[in-house]
Amino acid sequence: MGPTRLSILGVGLLGGSIGLAVRHLLKDCAVVGYGHRRATLDAALAAGAIHEAKGTAAEAVRGADLVILCTPVGIFRSILEEIAPALAPGAIVTDVGSTKRSVVSTAEQVLPPHVSFVGSHPMAGSEQRGVEFAAADLFRDAVCITTPTERTSDQALAIVEAFWRLLGMQVIQLTPTEHDRRLADVSHLPHAVAAALMTIQEGDSLPLAGKGFRDSTRIAGGDGGLWRDIFIDNRDNLRDSIRRLRGQLDRLETLLEHNDAEAIKLWLDAAASRRRALKAQREK
Amino acid sequence: MGPTRLSILGVGLLGGSIGLAVRHLLKDCAVVGYGHRRATLDAALAAGAIHEAKGTAAEAVRGADLVILCTPVGIFRSILEEIAPALAPGAIVTDVGSTKRSVVSTAEQVLPPHVSFVGSHPMAGSEQRGVEFAAADLFRDAVCITTPTERTSDQALAIVEAFWRLLGMQVIQLTPTEHDRRLADVSHLPHAVAAALMTIQEGDSLPLAGKGFRDSTRIAGGDGGLWRDIFIDNRDNLRDSIRRLRGQLDRLETLLEHNDAEAIKLWLDAAASRRRALKAQREK
Repeated sequence: MGPTRLSILGVGLLGGSIGLAVRHLLKDCAVVGYGHRRATLDAALAAGAIHEAKGTAAEAVRGADLVILCTPVGIFRSILEEIAPALAPGAIVTDVGSTKRSVVSTAEQVLPPHVSFVGSHPMAGSEQRGVEFAAADLFRDAVCITTPTERTSDQALAIVEAFWRLLGMQVIQLTPTEHDRRLADVSHLPHAVAAALMTIQEGDSLPLAGKGFRDSTRIAGGDGGLWRDIFIDNRDNLRDSIRRLRGQLDRLETLLEHNDAEAIKLWLDAAASRRRALKAQREK
Repeated sequence: MGPTRLSILGVGLLGGSIGLAVRHLLKDCAVVGYGHRRATLDAALAAGAIHEAKGTAAEAVRGADLVILCTPVGIFRSILEEIAPALAPGAIVTDVGSTKRSVVSTAEQVLPPHVSFVGSHPMAGSEQRGVEFAAADLFRDAVCITTPTERTSDQALAIVEAFWRLLGMQVIQLTPTEHDRRLADVSHLPHAVAAALMTIQEGDSLPLAGKGFRDSTRIAGGDGGLWRDIFIDNRDNLRDSIRRLRGQLDRLETLLEHNDAEAIKLWLDAAASRRRALKAQREK
């Protein structure tokens, strides 16, 4: 039950939190971390997120039965190319990337046939970065999406899903295509909108920002480089999501122009009722 | 120091919270509440938010030295017309309305010369409604905007501002015009955007909504009728805010179309840096 040697490639907020959770839950599992910078590895060792630190990804995966890619999506290809020759036969590789079509197809193309790949997207995290914000319970009660394809081994899928459940997550399966389409609506578009809301503010308005504004823009504080990678990788879906949002804003502007109080109330009531249903389901 | 007989017209979340705070802070002040429905008044009495309940606004303001309008903005005019003949000479009237141009001009037009009006917007609250969510500390550390005009009495302004400070608020003065312009950007537009984000979701995507989505849409759960009043009352400014937001989304869409990773990162970094500055200032 569970890996005996876990390799975490990228020991930031997510990788560090996985390490902390595994060290807490699986006492016999050795946790090896790879980081690009020595300071990051030292911080992960100091936080107790990993047992061993390695300066290259290839070294970090040697002998591991489970490997988790936790670096930004933009460098997945080069990491996969580097680890491909070093992976042990039977090793399982998964990831925490926020987009799935490109990740899954790259992994299936680059990795050798004697290892298995399973795409994962544990939907946890925050606008914070770095192992200093890592927490063993970051994943508890959150959703993890796995994205098996016809090339995914059933056994590897079962092992990866059991791993996320061990960390407290609810697992949902989607195709990589469905994942990227839906995530554009529930994650990438909200990030774009939060950034746009920050961008239009005049400096003299920000001192008036209340809790509502702070909640609705909190995600805009996230790392620009990480989100650029996500936006570029999922740009077809994100453009479609932006167009549909703009359609709603156009509609509201027309209703305001016509002073149509009744239609504005119907539009707001419908949104409020969906939001309250979400709250009832998810914030029990 | 402080009112001796406070009249709260509308004992919902805000009115109820004012009552609870005053009963805690000013033991000698009598708190009288008016509500449209008897059940609301009974709930306010049971919650300890008011000492006395009155079934008409005119009765509720008799003998009061401070009157606070806490009903939805849409019925301010009829309430002001009703209380105008009943107000004691020297009484001060203020409000908690989310828009200020129409409220201030209506009050200055309707109220008799022997009473003073001061426009206020205590920026506290939540997507919840009703006295059952009221709390004595709802206003603590929040911002209250007062909107004096050339017709506002300096003494009445000082008394109203001292009252909000007593409840723990930081007071900022703006003209009614400036208030409405800035609030469109930091409050009314974010609400419109949150509602639009809810509206475009397909049902199969909502189970994937993570904490970021829930934070960014929380305000959309607010009452449709209240927000319709605000949108209609401030529709010129809100339309302008929508247009500027759409300009940013158009820009992002063009950058995505051209796959311009560098410019997308700059856009995201600038937004993140403003959001982090806000956090450093306001979420200490």
